[in-house]
Amino acid sequence: MQRLIFAVLASFVAAMLVGPILIPWLKKLKVGQTINDFGPRSHMRKQGTVTMGGLIFIPSAIVCAILFSVKGQTPKYDLWFLILTMLLFAAIGFLDDYIKVVRKRSEGLTPKQKLLPQILLGIAIAVFAYNSPYIGSKLRVPFSSLEWDLGWFYIPFTAFVIVAMVNSSNLLDGLDGLCAGSGMIDFAALALIALSMSVLPDGTTDNDLFNTAIFCASLCGALLGFLRFNTHPASVFMGDVGSFAIGGAMVAVAIVTRQMLILPIIAFTMVLASLSDLIQFAYFRISHGKRVFRMAPLQHHFELSGIPETRIVAMYDIVTAMMCLIALSGFVG
Amino acid sequence: MQRLIFAVLASFVAAMLVGPILIPWLKKLKVGQTINDFGPRSHMRKQGTVTMGGLIFIPSAIVCAILFSVKGQTPKYDLWFLILTMLLFAAIGFLDDYIKVVRKRSEGLTPKQKLLPQILLGIAIAVFAYNSPYIGSKLRVPFSSLEWDLGWFYIPFTAFVIVAMVNSSNLLDGLDGLCAGSGMIDFAALALIALSMSVLPDGTTDNDLFNTAIFCASLCGALLGFLRFNTHPASVFMGDVGSFAIGGAMVAVAIVTRQMLILPIIAFTMVLASLSDLIQFAYFRISHGKRVFRMAPLQHHFELSGIPETRIVAMYDIVTAMMCLIALSGFVG
Repeated sequence: MQRLIFAVLASFVAAMLVGPILIPWLKKLKVGQTINDFGPRSHMRKQGTVTMGGLIFIPSAIVCAILFSVKGQTPKYDLWFLILTMLLFAAIGFLDDYIKVVRKRSEGLTPKQKLLPQILLGIAIAVFAYNSPYIGSKLRVPFSSLEWDLGWFYIPFTAFVIVAMVNSSNLLDGLDGLCAGSGMIDFAALALIALSMSVLPDGTTDNDLFNTAIFCASLCGALLGFLRFNTHPASVFMGDVGSFAIGGAMVAVAIVTRQMLILPIIAFTMVLASLSDLIQFAYFRISHGKRVFRMAPLQHHFELSGIPETRIVAMYDIVTAMMCLIALSGFVG
Repeated sequence: MQRLIFAVLASFVAAMLVGPILIPWLKKLKVGQTINDFGPRSHMRKQGTVTMGGLIFIPSAIVCAILFSVKGQTPKYDLWFLILTMLLFAAIGFLDDYIKVVRKRSEGLTPKQKLLPQILLGIAIAVFAYNSPYIGSKLRVPFSSLEWDLGWFYIPFTAFVIVAMVNSSNLLDGLDGLCAGSGMIDFAALALIALSMSVLPDGTTDNDLFNTAIFCASLCGALLGFLRFNTHPASVFMGDVGSFAIGGAMVAVAIVTRQMLILPIIAFTMVLASLSDLIQFAYFRISHGKRVFRMAPLQHHFELSGIPETRIVAMYDIVTAMMCLIALSGFVG
């Protein structure tokens, strides 16, 4: 537990140190976000703020996760699986950001170009997890001690969850401190869940689950450090490299802990962003042009309803904290 | 632990429900804050925002603390001591707010009128604690298993800590969400500290310490609910009734857990507000009119240095979280 706290502190300090080095460098490279034409008009003032801030917290989190992880007992794979999954999705996001910056094309990759590597990667990870003797096709059922064996259906289900989660995290990004704040709280909750799972019935510790907790704690600290630069008024955005990494890391943790079914509670605000987007799109199609929300994802609807950005972010943080507490209540005696 | 989470959730919901009832009512009574002439000029826009928001989270926290506390075993006193201390300081703050509102005198009570009841109350509480068979004159030394017996010196020391803490909390109040945010994180940390102390070496639970944890958790949840209305741009301020209650509750928890020596770490930002105020005042006197900070307490110095209010509050929250994690690291294995 102490180790977990030190991991948070260290990765926080790391991100605080990387920020002031990276941000001026990104500015010099003119890695400014070309603000998407689809966002609310008030976002035009954000034109020029540098993006790719994910590069601040991703390396900070990885270095601290490795430094504070427990060695000794033969490691199965968990930490490397987590780091690799996060990095692969970060790479897709990086490519998207890079194209936005270089080509000055606000949308970056086309939706198809974004989705195809995600789906392929999702399937690959799902197949790997299904065949791994340490993961397999059984999911834990939240708020119970039951396990649910999905059989071969585990593969399409997991691939779907991966792609959905990564895109949800990406959709939540858009207001200063929103995705980083929600992500920070989510990883704090996941760290505590993995920690409580790492204590085995016989009192010994499962090192792999403990290292998963360390990974989550490192991300939590790094995101807190990143928030120092990302809170309203943001001096850097996380970019797709950041939001894809958050979504990828979150789903990777859910896979190794077999807690995918609790993700909709923990990542509630991210799921909300996706769902509102889907509802908007579907209704627009069905009704031939009518809208449910003033703008999707939901956070922009609130913005256009006149709620100040900082208030929306606070509301989302509060809701995230509450949902995480509800999820946690299933893990403590 | 589950009980603790439910206390947070319930008091959060309670505060969320009380807010929309109380705020319009305060508005109707014209309980607007007359903005202090001594604050930064930009604060003039805050003129008219209702105050006395402490009345939202104080009853929410008390009701939930009572509801979720453990009965059974003969209770010593802890919960009632905590509630009473908080209420008495809240009453002094209420009086101050009331005079501000009714007399439209921005300063409320004069410093002497404020300080005298605080000192008297502080001494009374210190004497009570000193003579209590359950508290006594021994303090726990942070990051060690040592105890430090202060003897009769416990009384002036504790009275000083009480008055200092209550005024520090009051001085930190001034930016939207600042005192409530710091307080919320502090009480979360204190809840975990009391919880870890409540598990006795023989594996049984000390109900009084557990109820102290419940009290902290209830305050944490209620403050989170209050933040819904208090975040920038705030629709209600906590007022002296709120900040005195927070300071009073915090020091009361430190007294019953005998953890007064860890308060400067947990309540670091509050102590910072006090210290910067003292330094400013002392230097002003010594140098015949020079200033160390552009304005004291420190948070206003940052404001006048051009850092946006939301950014300062985020910085303070982050620093509070880090200091609390450091304090917590002394309580976990």
